[in-house]
Amino acid sequence: MPDRVDLIIHDVVIATMVRGHFNLIPHGALIADRGVIEWVGIAEGLPAVRARHEIAGRGRLLTPGLIDCHTHLVYGGNRTDEFTARLAGESYAEIERRGGGIMATVRATRSATVEALAAAARPRLRNLLSEGVTTVEIKTGYGLNAEHELKMLDVIDTLSASTPQTLIKTYLAHTIPPEYRALPNVYVTEICEEILPQVVGRADGFDVFCETFAFAPEQARRMLLTARAHGLPLHIHAEQHTSLGAAAMAAGLGALSASHLEYLDEADVPRLAAGGTTAVLLPVAAYVLREPHRPPVEALRLQSVPMAVATDGNPGTAPCFSLLTALNMACVLFGLTPEEALAGATVHAARALGLLDRIGTIEAGKDADLVLWDAESPVELVYTLGYHPSATVIKRGRVLSGA
Amino acid sequence: MPDRVDLIIHDVVIATMVRGHFNLIPHGALIADRGVIEWVGIAEGLPAVRARHEIAGRGRLLTPGLIDCHTHLVYGGNRTDEFTARLAGESYAEIERRGGGIMATVRATRSATVEALAAAARPRLRNLLSEGVTTVEIKTGYGLNAEHELKMLDVIDTLSASTPQTLIKTYLAHTIPPEYRALPNVYVTEICEEILPQVVGRADGFDVFCETFAFAPEQARRMLLTARAHGLPLHIHAEQHTSLGAAAMAAGLGALSASHLEYLDEADVPRLAAGGTTAVLLPVAAYVLREPHRPPVEALRLQSVPMAVATDGNPGTAPCFSLLTALNMACVLFGLTPEEALAGATVHAARALGLLDRIGTIEAGKDADLVLWDAESPVELVYTLGYHPSATVIKRGRVLSGA
Repeated sequence: MPDRVDLIIHDVVIATMVRGHFNLIPHGALIADRGVIEWVGIAEGLPAVRARHEIAGRGRLLTPGLIDCHTHLVYGGNRTDEFTARLAGESYAEIERRGGGIMATVRATRSATVEALAAAARPRLRNLLSEGVTTVEIKTGYGLNAEHELKMLDVIDTLSASTPQTLIKTYLAHTIPPEYRALPNVYVTEICEEILPQVVGRADGFDVFCETFAFAPEQARRMLLTARAHGLPLHIHAEQHTSLGAAAMAAGLGALSASHLEYLDEADVPRLAAGGTTAVLLPVAAYVLREPHRPPVEALRLQSVPMAVATDGNPGTAPCFSLLTALNMACVLFGLTPEEALAGATVHAARALGLLDRIGTIEAGKDADLVLWDAESPVELVYTLGYHPSATVIKRGRVLSGA
Repeated sequence: MPDRVDLIIHDVVIATMVRGHFNLIPHGALIADRGVIEWVGIAEGLPAVRARHEIAGRGRLLTPGLIDCHTHLVYGGNRTDEFTARLAGESYAEIERRGGGIMATVRATRSATVEALAAAARPRLRNLLSEGVTTVEIKTGYGLNAEHELKMLDVIDTLSASTPQTLIKTYLAHTIPPEYRALPNVYVTEICEEILPQVVGRADGFDVFCETFAFAPEQARRMLLTARAHGLPLHIHAEQHTSLGAAAMAAGLGALSASHLEYLDEADVPRLAAGGTTAVLLPVAAYVLREPHRPPVEALRLQSVPMAVATDGNPGTAPCFSLLTALNMACVLFGLTPEEALAGATVHAARALGLLDRIGTIEAGKDADLVLWDAESPVELVYTLGYHPSATVIKRGRVLSGA
């Protein structure tokens, strides 16, 4: 360690989140230099170095920067009409089948410019940043054809240039456009042969929505195999409304994550465990859709499948750009403990994105993505709703808001 | 109208909320002077006057300032331990009976100073203000004895001096302290003969929590009658966990509002209607407590009982200082329409506080409490979660944040 470093934080309660536990260090300190955590431990052991910037924590809580590992926050328009229609009794599947839902957002997204889409997305990212979210995954999937899927990647690049957050880009095969509904495999071939090759080098991963009104498991499998051959990390939207065995299929291909899982068959849980696949729980969508089924949390827990929690932020089923709201709902609606919920937005969210070597815990050698909260206990972050302790956000060692 | 006024707002979509409907004026304008709405109507009819301040709405939405008509946002400590205990299966009633719950907050509130309690409450009020909430009702009830109940009123006065929001103070008979549990009527007598007379002139109303583990209906009735004799407007917490007929009893005494009502017997609904009592729905507490019962919304609607919606913001059952979150939950969990939800945070919330002559709608002669939203439709305010369109707040004609 150099004798002069960029940042020392002392007098903090540190929740390191290593291996998914708070692992509280009650009187902790931390050294960061050149964007990386150099040292973390109990205050008494703090090496004698000088720092360009010091933060006195005054007993406040320090956590890893939060990670929202599943969002669709780039889109045109909104879906207030669908919200009203669902309250009047229409189901999500019915809305999808009549060309509302995803297709409504596809039309609005296709007709918008890159700059308009970026401008609409910025306040969503800012809201996440105000909650300490330093890494955000964003999916495409509202373009459907090559031109507009690549445009969505352009939007995310534009956003990356204007936010301190790390943005992870995932190309999502979201649904089958109406013009291909009679010949869905033609569209699957178009994705495999035309879109995926253009996406390689631009996107950080591939995701597919497997559902009765989107892609069938065999179609999803074909695209996942193609994406894997291109070297893209794999993800899947599976078992949100029906049990199709899609999560287990993707786990068998080594998928990093399987999202939703309300209808995951417990018998498939060992296959997720064997595949090293992280279960990404999206309780906001379950709440919005008044979904009575819950993911098999107890089975996932017992079989040590890592559980991440994300907003699913999107204009239809989860108009929510608040990761802390998702954590609260993961506890109240899905029965996670506050510790599991926070692990789901840190260590296991990092794992879901394949980034556990860089982020997700407070450990020497990792990026200094940190949040200093005006709180004493990590449970305070999870138990409030629509309101949270104020946060000082630190991204790669740089303090973004007043400490 | 003078030929020079304080404020003109033009090019706005106005949701006036008169009689509980959006009553949209698509191309609207408004004149405010000396804190009061002087004129509202379609842009073409705007009188030719000059204004000291003009706001160009650029087609954005203008609503009445929102009103949170039921909160407990002054308190000491927090109840994160209770959140964890409930997730582990303990019920709210069990927590109350073992001296957690309200009594835990009573201990923390009694041991805190006026300034410490005010400092803790300010960010909660600020969060509400950022959502366009210009009037907030705050209950006492964490002091229980005269000294600390009056201290809580002092805290609210301290807060009033440092926020532009109108704060309405309600003295709440919240629960029976453990030392009186064997002789609850002695405590009721103390409230009637010692506390209430000291509260008169300090508080704007009286409320009582009627529940198996708080006050019985006959005890509540005795206090309500005493408070009424002192000229205090009446409120009740009723039928949250059990059906005791308390809401109907209070309605018979002319109570302004009855809150919670998950277990309200439909047969009691006509008595609320006859009493002119507003039903205050608190969906966040129902969500936090995973309450399976819903208030009889359809019966309330059919019998024209006004429905308000509030946060219930408190450290235990609703750690939520976001009225827009409560509105979303009123729709998703209780089945209100977006229009009913917004009416519940404007016109009917004003009615619940006895303030409908001053606030709650956009009409000439009322206070110029207004919110200009970065939105086109009022549904946008209700359909998002943990995130909302940015708001320019206007309190009595004064613009509080950048237009």
